[in-house]
Amino acid sequence: MANIIVLGAGVMGSAFAQLLADAGNDVRLVGTHLDQDIIDSIKHDGLHPNLNVKLPGRIGAFSYEELDQVLAGSIQLIVFGVNSAGVDWAVNQIGSRLKTIIPVLMLTKGLAPVDNSIKILPHVVQKGLSHFNIVDIPIAAVGGPCIAGELAARRESSVVIAHPESQFLDRLLALVDTPYYHARASTDLIGVEVCAALKNFYTLAIGYATGQLEKKGKAANGALMHNLAAGLFTQAMAEMSYFVNFFGGQPDSVLGLAGVGDLYVTCQAGRNGRMGNLLGKGLRYKEAKSNHMPNDTVEGAELALGIGKTLNRWLADKKIDGNSIPLATKIVEAICDNLPLQIPWTLFYQDT
Amino acid sequence: MANIIVLGAGVMGSAFAQLLADAGNDVRLVGTHLDQDIIDSIKHDGLHPNLNVKLPGRIGAFSYEELDQVLAGSIQLIVFGVNSAGVDWAVNQIGSRLKTIIPVLMLTKGLAPVDNSIKILPHVVQKGLSHFNIVDIPIAAVGGPCIAGELAARRESSVVIAHPESQFLDRLLALVDTPYYHARASTDLIGVEVCAALKNFYTLAIGYATGQLEKKGKAANGALMHNLAAGLFTQAMAEMSYFVNFFGGQPDSVLGLAGVGDLYVTCQAGRNGRMGNLLGKGLRYKEAKSNHMPNDTVEGAELALGIGKTLNRWLADKKIDGNSIPLATKIVEAICDNLPLQIPWTLFYQDT
Repeated sequence: MANIIVLGAGVMGSAFAQLLADAGNDVRLVGTHLDQDIIDSIKHDGLHPNLNVKLPGRIGAFSYEELDQVLAGSIQLIVFGVNSAGVDWAVNQIGSRLKTIIPVLMLTKGLAPVDNSIKILPHVVQKGLSHFNIVDIPIAAVGGPCIAGELAARRESSVVIAHPESQFLDRLLALVDTPYYHARASTDLIGVEVCAALKNFYTLAIGYATGQLEKKGKAANGALMHNLAAGLFTQAMAEMSYFVNFFGGQPDSVLGLAGVGDLYVTCQAGRNGRMGNLLGKGLRYKEAKSNHMPNDTVEGAELALGIGKTLNRWLADKKIDGNSIPLATKIVEAICDNLPLQIPWTLFYQDT
Repeated sequence: MANIIVLGAGVMGSAFAQLLADAGNDVRLVGTHLDQDIIDSIKHDGLHPNLNVKLPGRIGAFSYEELDQVLAGSIQLIVFGVNSAGVDWAVNQIGSRLKTIIPVLMLTKGLAPVDNSIKILPHVVQKGLSHFNIVDIPIAAVGGPCIAGELAARRESSVVIAHPESQFLDRLLALVDTPYYHARASTDLIGVEVCAALKNFYTLAIGYATGQLEKKGKAANGALMHNLAAGLFTQAMAEMSYFVNFFGGQPDSVLGLAGVGDLYVTCQAGRNGRMGNLLGKGLRYKEAKSNHMPNDTVEGAELALGIGKTLNRWLADKKIDGNSIPLATKIVEAICDNLPLQIPWTLFYQDT
């Protein structure tokens, strides 16, 4: 097994730290500057206040200010458990301290605008570390349907770990080998990461169905709006396939855990679906955010705000085919331009 | 527009009859021998007692005993709205009376064992009609996420109409053109039909997650079992892709309305999910059926009972690859052999 640092003590980083400990690794969980209360609580009695779980005592908990000390030992893997807004911070923390090549595994998901283009986060990290003259670090990523609270409760979860090199993947799979965590390898890092980021984005639109239902109510005969949600889900899948292909990934990944699996689970629970619900009720994004979710990070909306401009430029330049992503176009419009979310039915299902 | 017969006055046949009327067609809704109460009610005041909707007065309602009279007029399309157990009956009713070539559109979904093989229902109907020397009838089919009660309430629904000939598809699309019904054409009749049948079958396994949750309860930290459901959903998608390819369909259909769309909606509501829930609680199929759903047709279980033997023989003969359908194998075992439903995690996600 291995000595592993998990950077970021939010719900996913901490649940993953427990998994790694269950698999027999020596784990050091390092909180960011936003995690001090969590780290204090874990140091006190093991309790992670947001996961509502007592972490095993063998997990060491540290403040980021103790990172020098944590990195001084022999470390075989660094896990990025920060959220997408914390990636630059994590890169700086690690980049300024790293003296040897230590592989990185990313739980953080997203797409980021870089140099007039859009990149998956492992490539953003790679570029960020290169500014510290750190190159050749293998950076893998986890995708698939894995709600942190369920992982922390050791409930059956299925994920895919992605990196172009199979040998590295085999080593990573061995580090997470536990009965309740069903991990598979994928060499399609791009496809997995594009899916992982876009599932939040498209859940904004699929959640629209629950909001519409609340707004319009049950029909006189008791009918709900499952057909509407399923139609949106299908269009989201088609557009995710287009994007995966566009960015150079394998469209097969959309059919796998990182694609359909993660989109499915994200629609069942969470903040993106909740924002979608508010949009479906007819609220505009800014109103929904400030009045109902002021302290929540809505990753799908952050993604739209991050890549919306680039996407619109590519649409204008016909670098990207607007007919293939009509729903994405409307989501970007709803988030970036604060317009009501519209469902462009006549443009849907072109490839059915 | 057209004069259209809808054969079968159950919820889907009747909701579709209303759609056809909304689109401007002249519709005659014909009940089977099981639908007499429904037909009587519709004749009385338009109310469909199971849909809880008053059908438009311009839809003519008839008993199957009036079929001669109904067929005497000029008819351009016959819609099969019976359930899968009623297909033979419908073929006999139509086959014994038909004097001209009238195209058929099937709402009925399923796969049936025929001559030591497994066929999609349009091919079963084709074969059945050939016994009456009726050949060359074009038979199309509807797939996609469309809960009948929602369609009857005129809520947004998305479907795919499948047939190898595009011109016939264009005519059919024109007949269902209404603002709330988003229909697209597919020339992949086999792929659409295999998906349409298997979505019920796999929902038995996905529903297992809700049963497990009820049995084991929330975790101490409040966690549910969405990860489990999403894992099963993903494996179902992979196996549906295998089956579609095996039967000669286009795997792309699995990514479309008939595949992922219909699987999604079927998991949200209905009898297959309810049976899956009972299996997930630990009940065996026969106990679940006789004690909890004695009067319900569980289409996914009927499918397993119908094709289970053939499937097992194909597995034994290695005509079909067992490694590609581990979940199907366990579902067949649970239904046909009345064994507890097991989830073979280690065999999952081979293609991820």
